[in-house]
Amino acid sequence: MTYCLGIITRYGLVLGADSRTNAGVDYISTYQKLFDFSDPGQRVLLLATSGNLSITQAIVNALQQDLKLMESETIHTLPTLYEVARYIGQKMRSVQEQERPWLEKDGIDYSSTLLLGGQVRGEEPGLYMIYSQGNCIQAMPETPFLQIGETKYGKPILDRTLTFDTPLEEAAKCALLSIDSTMKSNISVGSPIDLVMYETDSFFIKHQLRLRLGDPYLAKMRQLWQASLRQAFEQMPNLEWEYIDVVQEDVLTD
Amino acid sequence: MTYCLGIITRYGLVLGADSRTNAGVDYISTYQKLFDFSDPGQRVLLLATSGNLSITQAIVNALQQDLKLMESETIHTLPTLYEVARYIGQKMRSVQEQERPWLEKDGIDYSSTLLLGGQVRGEEPGLYMIYSQGNCIQAMPETPFLQIGETKYGKPILDRTLTFDTPLEEAAKCALLSIDSTMKSNISVGSPIDLVMYETDSFFIKHQLRLRLGDPYLAKMRQLWQASLRQAFEQMPNLEWEYIDVVQEDVLTD
Repeated sequence: MTYCLGIITRYGLVLGADSRTNAGVDYISTYQKLFDFSDPGQRVLLLATSGNLSITQAIVNALQQDLKLMESETIHTLPTLYEVARYIGQKMRSVQEQERPWLEKDGIDYSSTLLLGGQVRGEEPGLYMIYSQGNCIQAMPETPFLQIGETKYGKPILDRTLTFDTPLEEAAKCALLSIDSTMKSNISVGSPIDLVMYETDSFFIKHQLRLRLGDPYLAKMRQLWQASLRQAFEQMPNLEWEYIDVVQEDVLTD
Repeated sequence: MTYCLGIITRYGLVLGADSRTNAGVDYISTYQKLFDFSDPGQRVLLLATSGNLSITQAIVNALQQDLKLMESETIHTLPTLYEVARYIGQKMRSVQEQERPWLEKDGIDYSSTLLLGGQVRGEEPGLYMIYSQGNCIQAMPETPFLQIGETKYGKPILDRTLTFDTPLEEAAKCALLSIDSTMKSNISVGSPIDLVMYETDSFFIKHQLRLRLGDPYLAKMRQLWQASLRQAFEQMPNLEWEYIDVVQEDVLTD
Protein backbone atom coordinates (compact mmCIF):
# COMPACT_ATOMS: atom_id res chain seq x y z
CA MET A 1 0.00 0.00 0.00
CA THR A 2 0.94 3.66 -0.27
CA TYR A 3 -0.14 6.90 1.23
CA CYS A 4 0.46 10.22 -0.53
CA LEU A 5 -1.23 13.56 0.01
CA GLY A 6 -1.18 17.05 -1.39
CA ILE A 7 -2.29 20.23 0.34
CA ILE A 8 -2.95 23.58 -1.30
CA THR A 9 -3.37 26.81 0.67
CA ARG A 10 -3.20 30.47 -0.30
CA TYR A 11 0.49 30.35 0.69
CA GLY A 12 1.55 27.40 -1.44
CA LEU A 13 1.69 23.62 -1.63
CA VAL A 14 2.77 20.68 0.49
CA LEU A 15 3.22 17.19 -0.97
CA GLY A 16 4.08 14.15 1.10
CA ALA A 17 4.51 10.42 0.50
CA ASP A 18 5.56 7.29 2.28
CA SER A 19 7.98 4.87 0.55
CA ARG A 20 6.63 1.40 1.16
CA THR A 21 5.61 -0.94 -1.63
CA ASN A 22 4.32 -4.42 -1.09
CA ALA A 23 3.27 -7.40 -3.13
CA GLY A 24 1.25 -9.23 -0.50
CA VAL A 25 2.55 -8.99 3.07
CA ASP A 26 5.63 -11.10 2.43
CA TYR A 27 7.34 -8.91 -0.14
CA ILE A 28 7.86 -5.41 1.16
CA SER A 29 10.31 -2.92 -0.28
CA THR A 30 11.13 0.77 -0.44
CA TYR A 31 10.42 2.89 -3.51
CA GLN A 32 10.36 6.61 -4.02
CA LYS A 33 6.85 7.87 -4.73
CA LEU A 34 7.38 11.63 -4.80
CA PHE A 35 9.10 13.09 -7.86
CA ASP A 36 10.28 16.60 -8.60
CA PHE A 37 9.81 17.43 -12.31
CA SER A 38 10.36 21.17 -11.87
CA ASP A 39 12.01 23.50 -14.36
CA PRO A 40 13.54 25.71 -11.65
CA GLY A 41 12.68 29.37 -11.99
CA GLN A 42 10.03 28.65 -14.63
CA ARG A 43 7.65 26.09 -13.21
CA VAL A 44 7.37 23.79 -10.24
CA LEU A 45 5.95 20.29 -10.85
CA LEU A 46 5.65 17.67 -8.12
CA LEU A 47 4.25 14.22 -8.83
CA ALA A 48 3.16 11.64 -6.24
CA THR A 49 2.26 8.12 -7.32
CA SER A 50 0.18 5.26 -5.92
CA GLY A 51 -1.12 1.94 -7.15
CA ASN A 52 0.50 -0.61 -9.45
CA LEU A 53 4.24 0.16 -9.40
CA SER A 54 4.95 -1.05 -12.94
CA ILE A 55 2.27 1.33 -14.25
CA THR A 56 3.43 4.37 -12.28
CA GLN A 57 7.09 3.73 -13.16
CA ALA A 58 6.15 3.48 -16.83
CA ILE A 59 4.43 6.88 -16.62
CA VAL A 60 7.39 8.51 -14.85
CA ASN A 61 9.65 7.03 -17.52
CA ALA A 62 7.51 8.32 -20.36
CA LEU A 63 7.52 11.85 -18.89
CA GLN A 64 11.31 11.76 -18.50
CA GLN A 65 11.76 10.38 -22.01
CA ASP A 66 9.76 13.20 -23.61
CA LEU A 67 11.84 15.76 -21.71
CA LYS A 68 15.07 14.07 -22.79
CA LEU A 69 14.04 13.93 -26.44
CA MET A 70 12.94 17.58 -26.17
CA GLU A 71 9.59 16.80 -27.73
CA SER A 72 7.54 19.87 -28.63
CA GLU A 73 4.90 18.89 -26.07
CA THR A 74 6.36 18.10 -22.65
CA ILE A 75 5.48 18.89 -19.06
CA HIS A 76 7.93 21.81 -19.40
CA THR A 77 6.40 23.32 -22.54
CA LEU A 78 2.63 22.98 -22.04
CA PRO A 79 1.30 26.44 -21.12
CA THR A 80 -0.93 25.59 -18.12
CA LEU A 81 -0.89 23.18 -15.19
CA TYR A 82 -4.25 21.84 -16.30
CA GLU A 83 -2.76 20.89 -19.67
CA VAL A 84 0.16 19.23 -17.88
CA ALA A 85 -2.36 17.20 -15.85
CA ARG A 86 -4.25 16.22 -19.02
CA TYR A 87 -0.97 15.26 -20.71
CA ILE A 88 -0.01 13.03 -17.78
CA GLY A 89 -3.52 11.58 -18.02
CA GLN A 90 -2.79 10.72 -21.68
CA LYS A 91 0.41 8.94 -20.60
CA MET A 92 -1.67 7.05 -18.04
CA ARG A 93 -4.13 6.03 -20.77
CA SER A 94 -1.48 4.77 -23.17
CA VAL A 95 0.33 2.80 -20.43
CA GLN A 96 -2.99 1.33 -19.23
CA GLU A 97 -3.92 0.42 -22.81
CA GLN A 98 -0.66 -1.46 -23.22
CA GLU A 99 -0.48 -3.19 -19.81
CA ARG A 100 -4.03 -3.70 -18.66
CA PRO A 101 -5.05 -6.69 -20.82
CA TRP A 102 -2.02 -8.64 -19.53
CA LEU A 103 -2.59 -7.75 -15.89
CA GLU A 104 -6.34 -8.29 -16.10
CA LYS A 105 -5.81 -11.84 -17.40
CA ASP A 106 -4.15 -12.80 -14.13
CA GLY A 107 -6.44 -10.75 -11.92
CA ILE A 108 -3.71 -8.26 -11.03
CA ASP A 109 -4.80 -4.82 -9.90
CA TYR A 110 -3.71 -2.32 -12.56
CA SER A 111 -5.21 0.76 -10.94
CA SER A 112 -2.91 3.70 -10.26
CA THR A 113 -3.60 7.22 -9.12
CA LEU A 114 -1.37 10.28 -9.25
CA LEU A 115 -1.20 13.67 -7.58
CA LEU A 116 0.22 16.63 -9.46
CA GLY A 117 0.99 19.83 -7.57
CA GLY A 118 2.80 22.86 -8.90
CA GLN A 119 2.77 26.28 -10.44
CA VAL A 120 3.40 27.48 -13.99
CA ARG A 121 4.51 31.12 -14.47
CA GLY A 122 1.50 33.34 -15.13
CA GLU A 123 -0.86 31.12 -13.10
CA GLU A 124 -1.82 30.44 -9.50
CA PRO A 125 -0.53 27.17 -7.98
CA GLY A 126 -2.73 24.12 -8.51
CA LEU A 127 -3.22 20.58 -7.24
CA TYR A 128 -4.69 17.75 -9.31
CA MET A 129 -5.57 14.09 -8.86
CA ILE A 130 -5.15 11.98 -12.01
CA TYR A 131 -7.09 8.71 -12.07
CA SER A 132 -6.34 5.32 -13.64
CA GLN A 133 -8.72 6.29 -16.42
CA GLY A 134 -6.66 9.37 -17.27
CA ASN A 135 -9.26 11.92 -16.18
CA CYS A 136 -8.47 14.41 -13.42
CA ILE A 137 -9.97 16.61 -10.71
CA GLN A 138 -8.58 19.75 -9.10
CA ALA A 139 -8.49 20.57 -5.37
CA MET A 140 -10.55 23.63 -4.46
CA PRO A 141 -10.34 26.02 -1.49
CA GLU A 142 -13.34 24.36 0.24
CA THR A 143 -11.40 21.08 0.57
CA PRO A 144 -7.77 22.09 0.20
CA PHE A 145 -6.26 18.60 0.07
CA LEU A 146 -6.21 15.42 -2.03
CA GLN A 147 -5.12 11.95 -0.93
CA ILE A 148 -4.24 8.75 -2.79
CA GLY A 149 -3.62 5.17 -1.62
CA GLU A 150 -4.49 4.22 1.97
CA THR A 151 -6.37 7.45 2.69
CA LYS A 152 -8.70 6.79 5.61
CA TYR A 153 -6.42 6.71 8.66
CA GLY A 154 -4.89 10.07 7.82
CA LYS A 155 -8.08 11.91 6.81
CA PRO A 156 -9.58 12.97 10.18
CA ILE A 157 -6.60 15.14 11.10
CA LEU A 158 -6.83 16.92 7.75
CA ASP A 159 -10.61 17.32 8.04
CA ARG A 160 -10.27 18.86 11.48
CA THR A 161 -7.42 21.27 10.98
CA LEU A 162 -6.82 22.30 7.38
CA THR A 163 -8.32 25.30 5.65
CA PHE A 164 -7.19 27.32 2.65
CA ASP A 165 -5.83 29.90 5.14
CA THR A 166 -3.61 27.47 7.10
CA PRO A 167 0.00 28.71 7.23
CA LEU A 168 2.32 26.57 5.13
CA GLU A 169 4.56 25.33 7.96
CA GLU A 170 1.44 24.23 9.86
CA ALA A 171 0.13 22.46 6.76
CA ALA A 172 3.47 20.63 6.48
CA LYS A 173 3.28 19.47 10.10
CA CYS A 174 -0.30 18.38 9.49
CA ALA A 175 0.79 16.39 6.41
CA LEU A 176 3.55 14.72 8.40
CA LEU A 177 1.16 13.77 11.20
CA SER A 178 -1.36 12.47 8.68
CA ILE A 179 1.32 10.20 7.16
CA ASP A 180 2.65 9.18 10.57
CA SER A 181 -0.86 8.30 11.78
CA THR A 182 -1.31 6.08 8.75
CA MET A 183 2.06 4.41 9.31
CA LYS A 184 1.18 3.71 12.93
CA SER A 185 -2.17 2.14 12.05
CA ASN A 186 -1.19 0.23 8.88
CA ILE A 187 2.15 -1.53 8.45
CA SER A 188 1.83 -1.50 4.66
CA VAL A 189 2.57 2.25 4.78
CA GLY A 190 6.14 2.94 5.88
CA SER A 191 9.10 5.29 6.13
CA PRO A 192 11.14 7.03 4.80
CA ILE A 193 8.65 9.86 4.50
CA ASP A 194 9.29 12.39 1.73
CA LEU A 195 7.92 15.89 2.22
CA VAL A 196 8.14 18.96 0.00
CA MET A 197 6.89 22.48 0.74
CA TYR A 198 6.48 25.06 -2.02
CA GLU A 199 5.84 28.77 -1.49
CA THR A 200 3.53 30.48 -4.02
CA ASP A 201 5.32 32.53 -6.70
CA SER A 202 8.81 31.37 -5.71
CA PHE A 203 9.13 28.94 -8.67
CA PHE A 204 11.82 27.03 -6.76
CA ILE A 205 11.57 24.12 -4.34
CA LYS A 206 13.39 25.44 -1.30
CA HIS A 207 12.10 23.09 1.38
CA GLN A 208 12.25 19.34 1.26
CA LEU A 209 13.06 16.59 3.71
CA ARG A 210 13.28 12.84 4.03
CA LEU A 211 12.53 11.30 7.41
CA ARG A 212 13.85 7.81 7.99
CA LEU A 213 12.64 5.25 10.53
CA GLY A 214 14.12 6.17 13.90
CA ASP A 215 14.77 9.76 12.86
CA PRO A 216 14.95 11.76 16.10
CA TYR A 217 12.54 14.39 14.78
CA LEU A 218 9.95 11.72 13.98
CA ALA A 219 10.36 10.13 17.42
CA LYS A 220 10.09 13.51 19.16
CA MET A 221 7.07 14.46 17.08
CA ARG A 222 5.28 11.22 17.98
CA GLN A 223 6.03 11.72 21.66
CA LEU A 224 4.85 15.34 21.65
CA TRP A 225 1.78 14.48 19.66
CA GLN A 226 0.75 11.73 22.03
CA ALA A 227 1.30 14.05 25.01
CA SER A 228 -0.80 16.74 23.29
CA LEU A 229 -3.63 14.30 22.64
CA ARG A 230 -3.61 13.23 26.30
CA GLN A 231 -3.65 16.86 27.37
CA ALA A 232 -6.54 17.52 25.01
CA PHE A 233 -8.51 14.69 26.67
CA GLU A 234 -7.91 16.24 30.05
CA GLN A 235 -9.08 19.63 28.85
CA MET A 236 -12.27 18.15 27.42
CA PRO A 237 -15.28 18.67 29.67
CA ASN A 238 -16.42 15.58 31.54
CA LEU A 239 -19.07 13.54 29.82
CA GLU A 240 -22.60 14.31 30.95
CA TRP A 241 -23.70 10.78 31.77
CA GLU A 242 -27.32 9.93 32.32
CA TYR A 243 -26.72 8.59 35.82
CA ILE A 244 -28.73 5.51 36.53
CA ASP A 245 -29.55 5.04 40.18
CA VAL A 246 -29.22 1.31 40.61
CA VAL A 247 -29.57 1.32 44.41
CA GLN A 248 -33.02 2.88 44.35
CA GLU A 249 -34.51 0.01 46.31
CA ASP A 250 -32.02 0.57 49.13
CA VAL A 251 -32.83 4.26 49.18
CA LEU A 252 -36.52 3.51 49.44
CA THR A 253 -36.09 1.20 52.41
CA ASP A 254 -33.86 3.64 54.28
CA MET B 1 -22.15 1.93 7.13
CA THR B 2 -21.68 1.63 10.88
CA TYR B 3 -18.96 2.29 13.37
CA CYS B 4 -18.90 0.55 16.76
CA LEU B 5 -16.02 0.08 19.13
CA GLY B 6 -15.30 -1.55 22.45
CA ILE B 7 -12.49 -0.69 24.87
CA ILE B 8 -11.32 -2.79 27.79
CA THR B 9 -8.99 -1.45 30.47
CA ARG B 10 -8.15 -2.68 33.96
CA TYR B 11 -10.92 -0.37 35.23
CA GLY B 12 -13.73 -1.62 33.03
CA LEU B 13 -15.34 -1.36 29.63
CA VAL B 14 -16.54 1.29 27.21
CA LEU B 15 -18.78 0.48 24.25
CA GLY B 16 -19.87 3.00 21.67
CA ALA B 17 -21.85 3.02 18.43
CA ASP B 18 -23.24 5.36 15.86
CA SER B 19 -26.84 4.92 14.66
CA ARG B 20 -26.77 5.34 10.90
CA THR B 21 -27.87 2.62 8.51
CA ASN B 22 -27.88 2.99 4.78
CA ALA B 23 -28.87 1.03 1.71
CA GLY B 24 -26.87 2.91 -0.89
CA VAL B 25 -26.46 6.64 -0.35
CA ASP B 26 -30.11 7.43 -1.07
CA TYR B 27 -31.72 5.47 1.75
CA ILE B 28 -30.35 6.49 5.11
CA SER B 29 -32.05 5.82 8.42
CA THR B 30 -31.41 5.62 12.14
CA TYR B 31 -31.21 2.30 14.00
CA GLN B 32 -29.96 1.43 17.43
CA LYS B 33 -26.79 -0.68 17.27
CA LEU B 34 -25.86 -0.93 20.95
CA PHE B 35 -27.93 -3.24 23.11
CA ASP B 36 -27.91 -3.84 26.84
CA PHE B 37 -28.62 -7.51 27.63
CA SER B 38 -27.51 -7.29 31.25
CA ASP B 39 -28.98 -9.18 34.16
CA PRO B 40 -28.40 -6.34 36.64
CA GLY B 41 -26.43 -7.35 39.72
CA GLN B 42 -25.50 -10.70 38.17
CA ARG B 43 -23.91 -10.04 34.80
CA VAL B 44 -23.39 -7.18 32.43
CA LEU B 45 -23.73 -7.91 28.70
CA LEU B 46 -23.41 -5.25 26.02
CA LEU B 47 -23.80 -6.08 22.35
CA ALA B 48 -22.86 -3.83 19.41
CA THR B 49 -23.83 -4.79 15.87
CA SER B 50 -22.61 -4.00 12.36
CA GLY B 51 -23.25 -5.28 8.88
CA ASN B 52 -26.44 -6.54 7.28
CA LEU B 53 -29.28 -5.17 9.44
CA SER B 54 -31.70 -8.04 8.78
CA ILE B 55 -29.06 -10.50 10.00
CA THR B 56 -28.15 -8.56 13.17
CA GLN B 57 -31.79 -7.92 14.03
CA ALA B 58 -32.51 -11.64 13.62
CA ILE B 59 -29.71 -12.43 16.08
CA VAL B 60 -30.90 -9.85 18.63
CA ASN B 61 -34.39 -11.31 18.28
CA ALA B 62 -33.19 -14.88 18.80
CA LEU B 63 -31.33 -13.88 21.97
CA GLN B 64 -34.41 -12.09 23.35
CA GLN B 65 -36.66 -15.01 22.43
CA ASP B 66 -34.53 -17.52 24.34
CA LEU B 67 -34.59 -15.25 27.41
CA LYS B 68 -38.35 -14.83 27.15
CA LEU B 69 -38.94 -18.57 26.83
CA MET B 70 -36.53 -19.10 29.73
CA GLU B 71 -34.58 -21.74 27.81
CA SER B 72 -32.07 -23.64 29.90
CA GLU B 73 -29.24 -22.17 27.84
CA THR B 74 -29.44 -18.41 27.48
CA ILE B 75 -27.02 -15.50 27.67
CA HIS B 76 -28.12 -15.19 31.33
CA THR B 77 -27.48 -18.82 32.29
CA LEU B 78 -24.23 -19.73 30.52
CA PRO B 79 -21.46 -19.75 33.14
CA THR B 80 -18.75 -17.72 31.33
CA LEU B 81 -18.54 -14.76 28.97
CA TYR B 82 -16.64 -16.93 26.49
CA GLU B 83 -19.55 -19.37 26.38
CA VAL B 84 -21.96 -16.46 25.88
CA ALA B 85 -19.80 -15.31 22.92
CA ARG B 86 -19.80 -18.84 21.46
CA TYR B 87 -23.57 -19.09 21.96
CA ILE B 88 -24.11 -15.80 20.11
CA GLY B 89 -21.78 -17.18 17.41
CA GLN B 90 -24.12 -20.19 17.12
CA LYS B 91 -27.08 -17.83 16.65
CA MET B 92 -25.04 -16.04 13.95
CA ARG B 93 -24.41 -19.38 12.22
CA SER B 94 -28.04 -20.45 12.22
CA VAL B 95 -29.25 -17.07 10.96
CA GLN B 96 -26.56 -17.05 8.25
CA GLU B 97 -27.50 -20.61 7.26
CA GLN B 98 -31.10 -19.58 6.81
CA GLU B 99 -30.59 -16.21 5.10
CA ARG B 100 -27.32 -16.41 3.19
CA PRO B 101 -28.44 -18.46 0.17
CA TRP B 102 -31.25 -15.95 -0.54
CA LEU B 103 -29.02 -12.90 -0.14
CA GLU B 104 -26.16 -14.45 -2.07
CA LYS B 105 -28.44 -15.09 -5.05
CA ASP B 106 -28.94 -11.34 -5.48
CA GLY B 107 -25.38 -10.37 -4.62
CA ILE B 108 -26.41 -8.78 -1.30
CA ASP B 109 -23.75 -8.51 1.38
CA TYR B 110 -24.75 -10.80 4.25
CA SER B 111 -21.72 -10.18 6.43
CA SER B 112 -22.28 -9.00 9.98
CA THR B 113 -19.92 -8.57 12.89
CA LEU B 114 -20.69 -8.16 16.57
CA LEU B 115 -18.92 -6.91 19.67
CA LEU B 116 -19.73 -8.42 23.04
CA GLY B 117 -18.45 -6.71 26.17
CA GLY B 118 -19.35 -7.58 29.72
CA GLN B 119 -18.65 -9.33 32.97
CA VAL B 120 -20.09 -12.49 34.49
CA ARG B 121 -19.85 -12.91 38.29
CA GLY B 122 -16.74 -14.87 39.22
CA GLU B 123 -14.78 -13.63 36.17
CA GLU B 124 -12.87 -10.61 34.98
CA PRO B 125 -14.57 -8.40 32.37
CA GLY B 126 -14.07 -9.42 28.75
CA LEU B 127 -14.50 -8.05 25.24
CA TYR B 128 -15.11 -10.24 22.16
CA MET B 129 -15.57 -9.77 18.44
CA ILE B 130 -17.93 -12.33 16.84
CA TYR B 131 -17.56 -12.75 13.09
CA SER B 132 -20.07 -13.56 10.34
CA GLN B 133 -18.76 -17.12 10.46
CA GLY B 134 -19.67 -17.43 14.14
CA ASN B 135 -16.09 -17.67 15.42
CA CYS B 136 -14.76 -15.10 17.87
CA ILE B 137 -11.63 -13.38 19.17
CA GLN B 138 -10.99 -11.71 22.50
CA ALA B 139 -9.34 -8.31 23.10
CA MET B 140 -6.09 -8.56 25.06
CA PRO B 141 -4.24 -5.96 27.19
CA GLU B 142 -1.66 -5.33 24.41
CA THR B 143 -4.41 -3.97 22.12
CA PRO B 144 -7.24 -3.08 24.46
CA PHE B 145 -9.86 -2.26 21.85
CA LEU B 146 -11.91 -3.85 19.06
CA GLN B 147 -13.71 -2.08 16.21
CA ILE B 148 -16.37 -3.12 13.71
CA GLY B 149 -17.77 -1.47 10.57
CA GLU B 150 -16.03 1.62 9.17
CA THR B 151 -12.95 1.24 11.39
CA LYS B 152 -10.09 3.13 9.74
CA TYR B 153 -10.87 6.81 10.37
CA GLY B 154 -11.24 6.26 14.10
CA LYS B 155 -8.24 3.95 14.63
CA PRO B 156 -5.28 6.40 14.84
CA ILE B 157 -6.64 8.14 17.93
CA LEU B 158 -7.06 4.77 19.68
CA ASP B 159 -3.61 3.60 18.57
CA ARG B 160 -1.99 6.75 19.94
CA THR B 161 -3.70 7.09 23.29
CA LEU B 162 -5.20 3.88 24.65
CA THR B 163 -3.47 1.43 26.93
CA PHE B 164 -4.82 -1.13 29.38
CA ASP B 165 -4.05 1.42 32.13
CA THR B 166 -6.07 4.29 30.66
CA PRO B 167 -8.61 5.64 33.18
CA LEU B 168 -12.18 4.78 32.23
CA GLU B 169 -13.43 8.37 31.80
CA GLU B 170 -10.51 9.07 29.47
CA ALA B 171 -11.24 5.89 27.50
CA ALA B 172 -14.86 7.06 27.13
CA LYS B 173 -13.74 10.47 25.79
CA CYS B 174 -11.37 8.68 23.44
CA ALA B 175 -14.21 6.44 22.19
CA LEU B 176 -16.41 9.48 21.60
CA LEU B 177 -13.66 11.26 19.65
CA SER B 178 -12.99 8.13 17.63
CA ILE B 179 -16.69 7.96 16.65
CA ASP B 180 -16.88 11.69 16.03
CA SER B 181 -13.78 11.60 13.80
CA THR B 182 -15.41 8.84 11.76
CA MET B 183 -18.66 10.80 11.48
CA LYS B 184 -16.79 13.89 10.32
CA SER B 185 -14.88 11.98 7.61
CA ASN B 186 -17.63 9.62 6.41
CA ILE B 187 -21.27 10.68 6.08
CA SER B 188 -22.44 7.06 6.18
CA VAL B 189 -21.64 7.04 9.92
CA GLY B 190 -23.95 9.34 11.89
CA SER B 191 -25.49 10.42 15.17
CA PRO B 192 -27.06 9.80 17.63
CA ILE B 193 -24.02 8.28 19.30
CA ASP B 194 -24.66 5.71 22.02
CA LEU B 195 -22.02 5.31 24.69
CA VAL B 196 -21.90 3.03 27.72
CA MET B 197 -19.24 2.88 30.43
CA TYR B 198 -18.99 -0.07 32.82
CA GLU B 199 -16.85 -0.20 35.96
CA THR B 200 -15.25 -3.56 36.77
CA ASP B 201 -17.02 -5.58 39.49
CA SER B 202 -20.02 -3.24 39.70
CA PHE B 203 -22.33 -5.59 37.76
CA PHE B 204 -24.58 -2.64 36.94
CA ILE B 205 -24.54 -0.21 34.03
CA LYS B 206 -24.41 3.14 35.78
CA HIS B 207 -23.17 5.37 32.97
CA GLN B 208 -24.75 5.69 29.57
CA LEU B 209 -25.54 8.53 27.23
CA ARG B 210 -26.99 9.29 23.84
CA LEU B 211 -25.64 12.27 21.95
CA ARG B 212 -27.84 13.67 19.20
CA LEU B 213 -26.81 15.83 16.27
CA GLY B 214 -26.43 19.40 17.47
CA ASP B 215 -26.00 18.29 21.10
CA PRO B 216 -24.17 21.15 22.83
CA TYR B 217 -21.64 18.76 24.39
CA LEU B 218 -20.77 17.32 20.98
CA ALA B 219 -20.39 20.81 19.48
CA LYS B 220 -18.24 21.96 22.43
CA MET B 221 -16.12 18.81 22.23
CA ARG B 222 -15.48 19.31 18.51
CA GLN B 223 -14.52 22.93 19.08
CA LEU B 224 -12.17 22.11 21.95
CA TRP B 225 -10.65 19.20 20.09
CA GLN B 226 -9.90 21.30 17.04
CA ALA B 227 -8.35 24.01 19.22
CA SER B 228 -6.24 21.36 20.98
CA LEU B 229 -5.00 19.95 17.68
CA ARG B 230 -4.03 23.45 16.52
CA GLN B 231 -2.21 24.05 19.80
CA ALA B 232 -0.43 20.73 19.41
CA PHE B 233 0.80 21.81 15.96
CA GLU B 234 2.16 25.00 17.45
CA GLN B 235 3.96 23.08 20.19
CA MET B 236 5.56 20.75 17.66
CA PRO B 237 9.16 21.64 16.88
CA ASN B 238 9.67 23.26 13.48
CA LEU B 239 10.49 20.88 10.66
CA GLU B 240 14.17 20.54 9.95
CA TRP B 241 14.08 21.24 6.24
CA GLU B 242 17.04 20.49 4.05
CA TYR B 243 17.42 24.07 2.84
CA ILE B 244 18.24 24.28 -0.83
CA ASP B 245 20.17 27.37 -1.82
CA VAL B 246 18.63 28.21 -5.18
CA VAL B 247 20.40 31.55 -5.63
CA GLN B 248 23.88 30.05 -5.53
CA GLU B 249 24.84 31.54 -8.92
CA ASP B 250 24.05 35.03 -7.66
CA VAL B 251 26.14 34.44 -4.57
CA LEU B 252 29.08 33.33 -6.73
CA THR B 253 28.96 36.47 -8.92
CA ASP B 254 28.73 38.83 -5.94
